[in-house]
Amino acid sequence: MARKISRNTFLMESPPTIRSFASIVGKKEGEGPLAEFFDEVENDAYFGQKTWEQAESELMKRTLQKALSKGDITPEQVDMMFAGDLLNQCISSTYGLRDLNIPLLGIYGACSTMSEGLALSALMTDSGLGGNIAAVTSSHFCTAERQFRFPLSYGAVRTPTAQWTCTASGAAVVSPKTTSPFIRAVTIGKIVDMGVTDANNMGAAMAPAAAYVIKTFLHDTAMEPSDFDAIVTGDLGKVGSELLIELLKSDGVDISDKHKDCGVMMFDIEAQDVHAGGSGCGCSASVLCGYFLPKIRTGELKNILFCATGALMSPTASQQGESIPSISHAVFISAESRISGE
Amino acid sequence: MARKISRNTFLMESPPTIRSFASIVGKKEGEGPLAEFFDEVENDAYFGQKTWEQAESELMKRTLQKALSKGDITPEQVDMMFAGDLLNQCISSTYGLRDLNIPLLGIYGACSTMSEGLALSALMTDSGLGGNIAAVTSSHFCTAERQFRFPLSYGAVRTPTAQWTCTASGAAVVSPKTTSPFIRAVTIGKIVDMGVTDANNMGAAMAPAAAYVIKTFLHDTAMEPSDFDAIVTGDLGKVGSELLIELLKSDGVDISDKHKDCGVMMFDIEAQDVHAGGSGCGCSASVLCGYFLPKIRTGELKNILFCATGALMSPTASQQGESIPSISHAVFISAESRISGE
Repeated sequence: MARKISRNTFLMESPPTIRSFASIVGKKEGEGPLAEFFDEVENDAYFGQKTWEQAESELMKRTLQKALSKGDITPEQVDMMFAGDLLNQCISSTYGLRDLNIPLLGIYGACSTMSEGLALSALMTDSGLGGNIAAVTSSHFCTAERQFRFPLSYGAVRTPTAQWTCTASGAAVVSPKTTSPFIRAVTIGKIVDMGVTDANNMGAAMAPAAAYVIKTFLHDTAMEPSDFDAIVTGDLGKVGSELLIELLKSDGVDISDKHKDCGVMMFDIEAQDVHAGGSGCGCSASVLCGYFLPKIRTGELKNILFCATGALMSPTASQQGESIPSISHAVFISAESRISGE
Repeated sequence: MARKISRNTFLMESPPTIRSFASIVGKKEGEGPLAEFFDEVENDAYFGQKTWEQAESELMKRTLQKALSKGDITPEQVDMMFAGDLLNQCISSTYGLRDLNIPLLGIYGACSTMSEGLALSALMTDSGLGGNIAAVTSSHFCTAERQFRFPLSYGAVRTPTAQWTCTASGAAVVSPKTTSPFIRAVTIGKIVDMGVTDANNMGAAMAPAAAYVIKTFLHDTAMEPSDFDAIVTGDLGKVGSELLIELLKSDGVDISDKHKDCGVMMFDIEAQDVHAGGSGCGCSASVLCGYFLPKIRTGELKNILFCATGALMSPTASQQGESIPSISHAVFISAESRISGE
């Protein structure tokens, strides 16, 4: 049973295993520096469907099915799934997953969804409540741009701080402890809102939420940045990443040589003209499942702190002049189920 | 630690207590047959704010604060909260709760949100993961009509099967076992989609999901409808309620003399001209927290099965001709922590 060591932080007693995982991305992501790490690159933005929303549903479904088939798991063997996405009423998840007949707990954390899903899956698994629990999320450039910004055909000019919503999905299945990668601990974040109102600068809005959860995790577990191979944020992009490092430095925490941001990693920012980097629920989910988890499984990486970051505004709220509340949850993923000597 | 007795159903080992709860509703709900049961009736549709979205955020915040103050609980004493709502990107929750400084796990289950939040709160509490965990949700007639149907000023004619989104919120705080009401068991639902495409007949779309979860709960726990004082659905309305009873009868389960639907209970359907009844996340949440939980606490009611029901479509999906996937989760709430003789 997971042990609560502070208001926010839980240590796993018997660290659950991320038994299987998969990632599928779109064409542009498949032209980026991480291309070789993803399970599939789909060049058809419609994923064989008629609408972009159906395409994103298909992407999420295919990614979860891939994670299941890679782990030799049938849908019937999955006890429940935590799923959510960016679209209004989370329709990528509900339409994408409806045929799988798996008990569903819908979650909403914007781009923090993969952290939230993994944290809940780990807590449930370590409490003996599930044999296979899936965490899955997605995003799609065309659905997100249409919903959050402008119709694509409008051809709006993008600001320098704008990020590029990734067409990507990641899915992971959490099971009782067997082999690496293990989920060792989680910290549940809270909403942080520093008053940023620019929906084209979400990295800046989300950085303080990431700073809060990283600081809280390190404090609660008495760990140091040097204990990690990487402290991974979701999609702060270039602008938000710099801000995160500054914010933590001013609190006496230096993560500058450990920090990796999935939004920065996903693209060759200059050559692919994505301004501040990638974003979207699927960005950090696919980079985690495609790049980081395999390296933890092989032992190339030992310890990472995965902190997907979500901006919790809506177009309606932005139009009403509201600032952007943000959140991040931290998931400590390790190649070892115990620190040596523990 | 909760005990998993089937793929969907968990029995609580030490049934958590719903320590405190509150409900606040709008003017029309305050003119209905349940008026006397709610903690507050607010006649100002704006709740003192400038926009309807801000009004709904204020409603949710006030309701959670009311639940905390009734239970003599400070926000600092709440370990985490499960919250969600109907608005795009769940902004009622994120803006309503951002100042409370409580770790947040955002959920999305449309009008099934209160069941999902209570189920997760109970599972976490019985697993020793929280001292006070809050479940909260809301809906608002003006925000929902604008987002899901037509601008109010358009004056669209409502169909006979249409339901009236309630301006209402319910909040509950779940804690380790002390006194009644207790959460004894939960069943996690799955998506059911019978092909209904009429977004003005959501009761019919949701009835099969309610039938599935009720049948599964009764089967898994070997309980009978006669074991309950009431089997409570969220907002099926008149049309969906009749369908639910028929669907279960065809499976050999007769709940006709036990079934109560919060959407039907909320209004005097004829006199208040609400067509098929009330709907919205806040409908079942406020009726649970205002009407049912106090009666369980006093012992007037012994056992209820609470099954809030959610329609998981979006306007975009409906415009694309999609049918309506639905879900419901069951929460067994009781005045006793064990069946006598058990």
